[in-house]
Amino acid sequence: MAAPPGGRVRYVADAVVPCDGSGRILVPGAVEVDGDTIVSVGPVGGPGDEGGDGPGEGAEVRLRGILLPGLVNVHCHSPMTLFRGTGENLPLDRWLAEVLWPREARLTPDDVYWGMMLGASELLRCGVTTTSEMYFFEDAVADAVVAAGSRAVICPGVLQLPGLEGQSWSKRLSQIVDFHQRRHGDQDRIEVGFGPHAAYTVPLDVLAQAAELARELDALFHIHVAETKGEVDRFAAEHGGTVPAALADAGILDARVLAAHSIWLTDADLDLYAAHDVAVAHCPQSNAKLASGVARLEDMLSRGIRVGLATDGPASNNDLDLWEDMRLSVMLARIRSGEATSLPAAQVLDLVTRGGAAALGRHDLGSLHAGGKADMVLMDLDDPAFVPLLEDAQLIEHLVWSSQSRLISDVWVGGNQVVAEGECLTVDGPKARYEVQQRAHRLAGG
Amino acid sequence: MAAPPGGRVRYVADAVVPCDGSGRILVPGAVEVDGDTIVSVGPVGGPGDEGGDGPGEGAEVRLRGILLPGLVNVHCHSPMTLFRGTGENLPLDRWLAEVLWPREARLTPDDVYWGMMLGASELLRCGVTTTSEMYFFEDAVADAVVAAGSRAVICPGVLQLPGLEGQSWSKRLSQIVDFHQRRHGDQDRIEVGFGPHAAYTVPLDVLAQAAELARELDALFHIHVAETKGEVDRFAAEHGGTVPAALADAGILDARVLAAHSIWLTDADLDLYAAHDVAVAHCPQSNAKLASGVARLEDMLSRGIRVGLATDGPASNNDLDLWEDMRLSVMLARIRSGEATSLPAAQVLDLVTRGGAAALGRHDLGSLHAGGKADMVLMDLDDPAFVPLLEDAQLIEHLVWSSQSRLISDVWVGGNQVVAEGECLTVDGPKARYEVQQRAHRLAGG
Repeated sequence: MAAPPGGRVRYVADAVVPCDGSGRILVPGAVEVDGDTIVSVGPVGGPGDEGGDGPGEGAEVRLRGILLPGLVNVHCHSPMTLFRGTGENLPLDRWLAEVLWPREARLTPDDVYWGMMLGASELLRCGVTTTSEMYFFEDAVADAVVAAGSRAVICPGVLQLPGLEGQSWSKRLSQIVDFHQRRHGDQDRIEVGFGPHAAYTVPLDVLAQAAELARELDALFHIHVAETKGEVDRFAAEHGGTVPAALADAGILDARVLAAHSIWLTDADLDLYAAHDVAVAHCPQSNAKLASGVARLEDMLSRGIRVGLATDGPASNNDLDLWEDMRLSVMLARIRSGEATSLPAAQVLDLVTRGGAAALGRHDLGSLHAGGKADMVLMDLDDPAFVPLLEDAQLIEHLVWSSQSRLISDVWVGGNQVVAEGECLTVDGPKARYEVQQRAHRLAGG
Repeated sequence: MAAPPGGRVRYVADAVVPCDGSGRILVPGAVEVDGDTIVSVGPVGGPGDEGGDGPGEGAEVRLRGILLPGLVNVHCHSPMTLFRGTGENLPLDRWLAEVLWPREARLTPDDVYWGMMLGASELLRCGVTTTSEMYFFEDAVADAVVAAGSRAVICPGVLQLPGLEGQSWSKRLSQIVDFHQRRHGDQDRIEVGFGPHAAYTVPLDVLAQAAELARELDALFHIHVAETKGEVDRFAAEHGGTVPAALADAGILDARVLAAHSIWLTDADLDLYAAHDVAVAHCPQSNAKLASGVARLEDMLSRGIRVGLATDGPASNNDLDLWEDMRLSVMLARIRSGEATSLPAAQVLDLVTRGGAAALGRHDLGSLHAGGKADMVLMDLDDPAFVPLLEDAQLIEHLVWSSQSRLISDVWVGGNQVVAEGECLTVDGPKARYEVQQRAHRLAGG
């Protein structure tokens, strides 16, 4: 399924699910791409079919399967593939203090590069073309994203690891501004934001400075909020209120805020999110596995809050398969509501595509539409997961409920094919696995 | 990876996880098989390695990956692949009345055969070698199990579909006794039980007759219990107590009872289960998707109740991937307990293997041990899911948390290879998909 490189290409697929908010399903459908951008999306062989271009104007590629927009994973620490399955079954505080932080203190940029390369290869294979990343050694993350051919909003972490408190907060913020100047817009695939860890680990005045800088640069302000009950209770005891209220009072919610987790929120907190157009990164699998809780997804959506889905990092999920989080978010919402009609398939498919892109403020992603980026996923229909198929709408049910990321055969980012027949073309898999294995051994003190 | 047919074969794998309750991980390990039975399991190249047999005694097959016992799915209606993704997003009562029952009333034995064939191919590909099936047209189910090379406890359903109430209950019970005589032990892969639907659809005296017949035949008595809050409330209003209490009073719990779902149970109900050694089929994904609720898994395990995991049928799950239910059962237990240490990986891996077999009263299944059936699954290790791997115990974490059924390459049932390189050898996939598609169309009235 190798596509001709660059130029103008018309992809004709058995079905196209544009996820453009129209509810359209094009059977068959065509997506025409010029360079890294989609120029048209439409049905084939019916009204509205403008036909292929004449010979010489562009190639036509016939695709077997369903063509979807690339998925958007709005909260990830992908380089943590280095720590996957390490220190499992410990309570969170002991895991951080005894397992994670000592290892992270030993990290080098090359470690992060290879952790990100392995993570990027997994994300792409699962159909995730854009991630919002929060981690350290941001240049290494950016180098890996460039090499892997994926797309990312890279939000350098702001946090003082135990034993590494020497660096001043303001110096760190200056580094991020410098990184933004150097790498924002790199390859037209990298966007730079700010990644201050949380209100319980970073002083409020530092968060406010970061938010002010982010606002000046129109950059994403990506932060963990209310992930655990304990964190929320301690914050209330110290500050006499909730985290969202404190962030609002400090003017921080006036930045382009993406609030990851956001589990333990009051109604007033949700109203603050809605009033300040705060976006949420909903991480159902990480939150369940770590026993953090279940975010109030339907209460967020009913208030018009922008919500994207996210895997969180592979040290806590432990794979990077957003397909699973899509399904889990529905199941948890239905357990909460007691209604089997909560979150229909089309709505949750929107959350991993157009909704995720909207959470990042990116209307050029997450949907197949003219003018959008040519980030596309092809899924094999020739599987029991899609049987029976009696009407087009059933495609969406099967996509959400019985298909799996294993059925993703081909992936394109900005028109460039990065996965073919289920294999990532841009990352040397055995090399990335070898590097992560060796480096994880060293980081563990071995 | 074709194995020599029959005879004595020694399989040597990179790792063997026997799931035999010992916690052993053999790296590398060997499983020796004679016909359909395992004759030895042990390490290779260390103390306890008895070495291969001499030339002429048997073949040695080198396997790349982790060898596990075949999984056991203890509650399934596999032929319902015919209705996958049909009438989604309806409340349960409307779905049954408007979608399912009218279609089921049109079923023929051939429909059920092909539904089961497609389901069996999916189950085998996901590493499920044994299912406990509850459905109608039990001879067609058995024929498909024989043809697909899988293993099943077939529990013919007892239920009067609307419009088909003509048949007497006692005639149906006689049919099951006859079916038991004819098919129990067929190919040494079919066991026959009773599948009365539920206490809210089958009169208590009929359930008691069925339990008495099951006890006489030492057959499994497989029934839905307390799946929805509404059903439990209505039963209490009519009978003045809980379903388990009514079943105990009628002597029904003295049969070999497998109680599917069992969500809305009181402490006293759980105590009754423990006292009567009732086994539970825990169906977390079906229960969540249909908003039925979350069963009290940890409360069951702490009482010593036998619990196996189950997908339920593909009309309500919608795939047959038990691997997902394994992970979900931990996540739901941790949300309930608030403890990230609930249900460690080794414990839940036990639930889909040895625990599931124990729930069926089958100690020859679900574990790789001398004397057990040679039902085995080989999983590819050569994947990011298993990186990094710093110690053997981490294998179990990766198996549960980052591997997926897509990594299952080969499957054997009773020593006979039924899946190779991810493809089911025993079911003609395109034919099964075609048959189910055509039949689903007819059943929908098309």
